[in-house]
Amino acid sequence: MIVGGVAAGPKVAARARRLMPDAEITVVDKGRYISYAGCGMPFYVDDQVGHFRELFNTGYGLPRDAEYFRSERGLNFLTRTEAVAVDRAGKQVLIRDLETSREKTLGYDRLVLATGAESVMPPLEGRELAGVFKFRDPGDAQAVKEYLERRNVQEAVVVGAGFIGIELAGALANLKLLTTVIEFQERILPLTLDADMARLLEERLAAAHGIEFRTGERVVRLEGDEQGRVRRVHTDRGACDAEVVIVAVGVRPNVQLAREAGLVLGETGAVAIDEHCRTSDPDIYACGDCVETTHRLTGEKVYSPFASAANRQGRVVADNLAGRPSVYRGVLGTAVLQAGTFNAGRTGLTEEHARRLGHQVVTSIAPQRDRTHYHPGSGMVILKVVADGRSGRLLGVQGIGPGEVVKRIDVAAAVLHFGGTVNDLLELDLGYAPPFNTPVDPLQHTANALVNKLDSIVETISADELKAKLDDDEDFVLLDVRVEKEAKHRKIDDPRRVLVTLSELRRRLAEIPRDKEIITICDIGVRSYEAYRLLRGAGFDRVKSVEGGMRTWPYGPASMF
Amino acid sequence: MIVGGVAAGPKVAARARRLMPDAEITVVDKGRYISYAGCGMPFYVDDQVGHFRELFNTGYGLPRDAEYFRSERGLNFLTRTEAVAVDRAGKQVLIRDLETSREKTLGYDRLVLATGAESVMPPLEGRELAGVFKFRDPGDAQAVKEYLERRNVQEAVVVGAGFIGIELAGALANLKLLTTVIEFQERILPLTLDADMARLLEERLAAAHGIEFRTGERVVRLEGDEQGRVRRVHTDRGACDAEVVIVAVGVRPNVQLAREAGLVLGETGAVAIDEHCRTSDPDIYACGDCVETTHRLTGEKVYSPFASAANRQGRVVADNLAGRPSVYRGVLGTAVLQAGTFNAGRTGLTEEHARRLGHQVVTSIAPQRDRTHYHPGSGMVILKVVADGRSGRLLGVQGIGPGEVVKRIDVAAAVLHFGGTVNDLLELDLGYAPPFNTPVDPLQHTANALVNKLDSIVETISADELKAKLDDDEDFVLLDVRVEKEAKHRKIDDPRRVLVTLSELRRRLAEIPRDKEIITICDIGVRSYEAYRLLRGAGFDRVKSVEGGMRTWPYGPASMF
Repeated sequence: MIVGGVAAGPKVAARARRLMPDAEITVVDKGRYISYAGCGMPFYVDDQVGHFRELFNTGYGLPRDAEYFRSERGLNFLTRTEAVAVDRAGKQVLIRDLETSREKTLGYDRLVLATGAESVMPPLEGRELAGVFKFRDPGDAQAVKEYLERRNVQEAVVVGAGFIGIELAGALANLKLLTTVIEFQERILPLTLDADMARLLEERLAAAHGIEFRTGERVVRLEGDEQGRVRRVHTDRGACDAEVVIVAVGVRPNVQLAREAGLVLGETGAVAIDEHCRTSDPDIYACGDCVETTHRLTGEKVYSPFASAANRQGRVVADNLAGRPSVYRGVLGTAVLQAGTFNAGRTGLTEEHARRLGHQVVTSIAPQRDRTHYHPGSGMVILKVVADGRSGRLLGVQGIGPGEVVKRIDVAAAVLHFGGTVNDLLELDLGYAPPFNTPVDPLQHTANALVNKLDSIVETISADELKAKLDDDEDFVLLDVRVEKEAKHRKIDDPRRVLVTLSELRRRLAEIPRDKEIITICDIGVRSYEAYRLLRGAGFDRVKSVEGGMRTWPYGPASMF
Repeated sequence: MIVGGVAAGPKVAARARRLMPDAEITVVDKGRYISYAGCGMPFYVDDQVGHFRELFNTGYGLPRDAEYFRSERGLNFLTRTEAVAVDRAGKQVLIRDLETSREKTLGYDRLVLATGAESVMPPLEGRELAGVFKFRDPGDAQAVKEYLERRNVQEAVVVGAGFIGIELAGALANLKLLTTVIEFQERILPLTLDADMARLLEERLAAAHGIEFRTGERVVRLEGDEQGRVRRVHTDRGACDAEVVIVAVGVRPNVQLAREAGLVLGETGAVAIDEHCRTSDPDIYACGDCVETTHRLTGEKVYSPFASAANRQGRVVADNLAGRPSVYRGVLGTAVLQAGTFNAGRTGLTEEHARRLGHQVVTSIAPQRDRTHYHPGSGMVILKVVADGRSGRLLGVQGIGPGEVVKRIDVAAAVLHFGGTVNDLLELDLGYAPPFNTPVDPLQHTANALVNKLDSIVETISADELKAKLDDDEDFVLLDVRVEKEAKHRKIDDPRRVLVTLSELRRRLAEIPRDKEIITICDIGVRSYEAYRLLRGAGFDRVKSVEGGMRTWPYGPASMF
């Protein structure tokens, strides 16, 4: 018996059926919708997914409903049926038909809990107003979409800048709504990106899509009009108009059934499982968004509710049910998203996380085109590589940009899987052709930059460090080595900045003061590195290059990729 | 001193300059064009690259000519200058200015040979006709393009179905030319793909772009008209019209200088180097398209002239020149391309190569969408995973399709780098979101299929094996379990085929004869696998599933992705 019919549950059921043709397999789910593409919902809101039913259909057009699972998969699927209580001693589950309220018990040999997660809805005043939504199941997505259309909504507020919040903001912006994202933490995607990367993505999303971000701000109440429709969002720092408010402040695992059955919950609050996906009761397995898992780089217990993990765990559970020992070893913290025209992702540890764990962290940030600049459709990516300076071990990679970020995240995830080093990254024999890549892949370019730092071939400062130096009125030369056209387009407006194009630098060396620190800067950090080496070779002692150049400078004027 | 100024040479020079500010660095190249984007030339032919100069420009718009290298990189660059002979004892090189024919000698402390490769031009009768081109340097690309436009060419022939040949065929087809590819070997991309994958790609390129492939056919002579322009290509099996003929039968390393200097050449005919990229003379390094390298999976010496390797080797040479010991460990056989709307690639060993090496090979082929089917822009990919059945070690991956093939090739290359197994592939924590992927990545899906075969959960036959059974008039049931619409669209027209939709199969089991072998087939091999398990569970003993389904059936009617 399997409780939960969205992602992990059906996966367990389908593979268990294939492995055990004679087993009686029953799946119960309290919802109306089963086996739906929850991750596709933001793309349904902005019409990228053509029709609501696409979220339920197979690739060949059949709806994945109870009848489909019965006829195609040989599974007994009970929808609108709640699992109320587990009697572990008697090995049976009390279930309730939510249409008729009728209850009965179902026996089991093995029970699988795939009860999923639910949206956190904070106890905000006004949360019952029309136009206030959570965004967890297809009913929510449909309700949001209908409301947007019916009320011809112009102004939207998303509460929460996590994955769902940012994807939704992208979808609402695609619909040309005035979109505001309010996030309690000081930055967007606080669980996924370091502050520097998050700020760059925020700046780009704001510039390209007009999304307004209000970070470090807490929603305190929602205000409605006389018709009981939401009109305004009040925060601890002000207010803004809103015709629709979507609350996406996170999800929490549905553990009530497990808890009441006396199963052990983990430190994250989700159901604890061993590497066979077994709970503290050897006859009960659990998988998907209701369980906690292990971070394979740190050994820490983490709550990582992603569909890819749910599928993998589902396969492992089915194998174990069928007597084929199989293990799930955990996650690497990989997470990717698309919002508007931007991609973002992370695998492994952020710099902040790595520092908390005591690593001697070295990082590099580099903007690069995702393929040859002369090829149509090339787009910028900014990658950040995090490594342990002592061992050279790769710890994590983050990426943002309109270009192909996710390929690089996946490649880095593979290196992390094997505990590889930055040097391993450099030695990878990746595919190169102009439509796909540059001869030195952006990921390898960024790793090269890190190795150059490790080898003391270059000393860099970050955009933030430069900002602090400028704000502190330090005396230095900001040597901009770009060509004039680039500098005219976007520059740091400061009297300490001098423009000497790299191609002129060799013959104009006499103009560069030798008694001051020289900070070199260009567009992406390549020419500033070249200038750094040139100056050092010419005897300048105090030189630094701005890592990632103007493309990583988020302090205006607004940049675009 | 560096001989060769296209890819590896400038890379060595630039990094050597950064590492050794005081070194005298001279690069000589006999060509007019240096540091050009050779891999971009096919995309210049079909106007994807907007302008010829883009093949030479930096991302910020400067042409990478001798003046650029002098002023930006501090390098002495001599173009149209041939290195005629190396005097190793005297440590000097005789060079000749090709404009003035003046000769002089240049001394060196260290010499780097980056002499590249040249197109093989077979001694065909008629090769001097107007309209007959090789395709190696920008001059060739420009000449081809001008000829196509000036003569308003309608019919083109490409001789050779290797990388350049297939990319070019895609470019010519994009220009709406009637394009024929003639290849001596029995299939396209003979060095890259197994026969099954090559045939599928060939079928798709033919169906989607109207390219005619004549494989197993040898060009014997070119016929011209009275104006001395090529008009017809004669082969050992016939002839075809052609207003332009591009010969792309391969490249060979430029080793004359090395050979005459007495340097050791390797078994492939290219310059032999050690893992520091040093030749048999410790003061002479070599890198790029003129050297041979090591296949890291087999230890075999291979000739692998790719820009990504050239760049990596260039960095290694520069590091070693500067006294920073650095190694280049070789290639994994990764190669990717785009032709028309199709991508293709390979990393590691093909099945054929693995069999020759004595592996107990297990493979799986699976077509899948590259992202969720409901997301716009999703495209099909067909992946083939090759593994060693005894150890489970991953040996190689091939992919073709309009979808995102190359990401999967790169991820597989990372697994191969670490000597990983198919199980490692399954455990990778890859990024999932609907615009990028499916919850089970196509690569992992294909690996799952392979594991199911290894674990005897399914027994499959290939499209070829099915074809042979059909042709041999064997008695069996071809059980097509797709929905009617799919079967109507494209099916194997044979009396042995019965259509029983998977959803009906359970209640129509009585109709399936128990005394015959049952071959299940569907669209991509997922439902046929489900049907296989169903039938086996119901007591049918002789069942097989067609791996990859109709999508891997290349024997007509023509399919499209």
